[in-house]
Amino acid sequence: MKFVTAKDVNGIFVGLLDETEENVLPLSLAEQKLFGTNNCPESLVSGISSGARFIDYVQTVLNAAPEDLYIPLHSVELLAPIPRPSKNIFCVGKNYVDHALELGGSKDDIPEDILVFTKAPTTVTGHGKMVPLHSEVTDSLDYEGELAIVIGKQGKGIKKEEALDHIFGYTIINDITARDLQFKHKQYFIGKSLDESCPIGPCIVQASAVANPNQLDIVTKVNGEVRQSSNTEHFIFSVETIISELSKGMTLEPGDIISTGTPAGVGSGYKPPRFLQAGDKVEITIEGIGTLENTIGE
Amino acid sequence: MKFVTAKDVNGIFVGLLDETEENVLPLSLAEQKLFGTNNCPESLVSGISSGARFIDYVQTVLNAAPEDLYIPLHSVELLAPIPRPSKNIFCVGKNYVDHALELGGSKDDIPEDILVFTKAPTTVTGHGKMVPLHSEVTDSLDYEGELAIVIGKQGKGIKKEEALDHIFGYTIINDITARDLQFKHKQYFIGKSLDESCPIGPCIVQASAVANPNQLDIVTKVNGEVRQSSNTEHFIFSVETIISELSKGMTLEPGDIISTGTPAGVGSGYKPPRFLQAGDKVEITIEGIGTLENTIGE
Repeated sequence: MKFVTAKDVNGIFVGLLDETEENVLPLSLAEQKLFGTNNCPESLVSGISSGARFIDYVQTVLNAAPEDLYIPLHSVELLAPIPRPSKNIFCVGKNYVDHALELGGSKDDIPEDILVFTKAPTTVTGHGKMVPLHSEVTDSLDYEGELAIVIGKQGKGIKKEEALDHIFGYTIINDITARDLQFKHKQYFIGKSLDESCPIGPCIVQASAVANPNQLDIVTKVNGEVRQSSNTEHFIFSVETIISELSKGMTLEPGDIISTGTPAGVGSGYKPPRFLQAGDKVEITIEGIGTLENTIGE
Repeated sequence: MKFVTAKDVNGIFVGLLDETEENVLPLSLAEQKLFGTNNCPESLVSGISSGARFIDYVQTVLNAAPEDLYIPLHSVELLAPIPRPSKNIFCVGKNYVDHALELGGSKDDIPEDILVFTKAPTTVTGHGKMVPLHSEVTDSLDYEGELAIVIGKQGKGIKKEEALDHIFGYTIINDITARDLQFKHKQYFIGKSLDESCPIGPCIVQASAVANPNQLDIVTKVNGEVRQSSNTEHFIFSVETIISELSKGMTLEPGDIISTGTPAGVGSGYKPPRFLQAGDKVEITIEGIGTLENTIGE
């Protein structure tokens, strides 16, 4: 199942994509029409937090819903699946060897221990949204296509072998980065937290639909040209290791979003660098999830 | 005015300390008894977000409240003034020259540009609470006494000369740090985000009660022994500069908490280092705010 959060004249709602991914089933509305009840959680995070009960609920509505309850995706506005996370997005840095080398240039840049920074919730934006160029504060805005994990079950000290049980699903993140600010301020937070610099989406695919998160093709295109093309099999730290390392002494909670790092091919890796310009279209495609597309604004 | 969030048999409430700081006026209850109305915001953040209206409301209740509406502080449980912030705590690193030198040892460790990392909301705990030693993941838990800013008014691109207008008030933070994890993972987030490693409190003092946040005595004691003793006049980046730098391209929101860095005297600065042990009592006192006290658990 692929979950989305969308908006229409009636407000914000949680929906499910159909197989064509051109139509969406608005859960709450469908439930009302089918059963006359109102049991839909008010947000996707609230659903995720209620665990198996939410999946059962969704399955019940899905099984009963005829085609005419679906609405065309183009008639609604997609938001990030979790439009306002309740804490910063966790981000793993330098999780592909080739990217660590293109950023730093030497073997010392390949991390021996996991490197984690965060992006403020004010960075979150959705599929199809314009991302500001922020030219008043940076001259080196860069893209980073990444697989992101959405936590489904609370846990601390999670063992690697239990890590996948804590995942609700997967989505795509464009970890837009002001490259000059990232390095000028040493700690990455400032360069990673410009407003609307974290497009997330288009959907969250349920974990059970992904056979192995550590073996997914990932491709980033800018204006149709392939810039990043890799596979998550090249992770330095696997999805299981990331969850295990992050949860050592820190509780992970339902709805937490963990971005897993980007492969080589970011703009700053080119000589000369190819930073984002106004009007650029960035598309990130991950096998089994979909394509996250955003255009850079003025 | 000094705002607290506390808990008693009736639940969590927002209160005001009296001048002795031994009694608290529970705002909602006082309002009900005085006027028979229920206009109190449900949380301190919600009050902060409603701006001047909240201050007017508090003033009205305060002016009307007789002494017998106050309850002894020792009869309630103090929580962090904002028990669950809606995003990570912003933290400025190396904001006092002497601390930058004790951590690094050379002039290269004095930042030319502001350095910002974050602590997850799961780190937040209150005055008087036990802070876990986390001995299963670190052998070098350290204290850091810090002045913290609470944002009152949303803003982006805030000019230095307008920065103070965006502050609701000030509080104290103990930026408890797993020193080994901080450096092993390069980016500070992991070493700064162990559960309950961010005691905040005891209160938020209204900004208007602080003549100059860049001139406040700050003292940290461990088991009664002075370890840090400085004044915020030694900031490398002033409160105004911090707000101006952070808000370049990033929107600051009401309830955001920004910790301003710690002076010299942390445990890792001693030779040999003096890290926290089970049973240690840490007290941080900042002029005009109060004392934040916590004991280290097993």
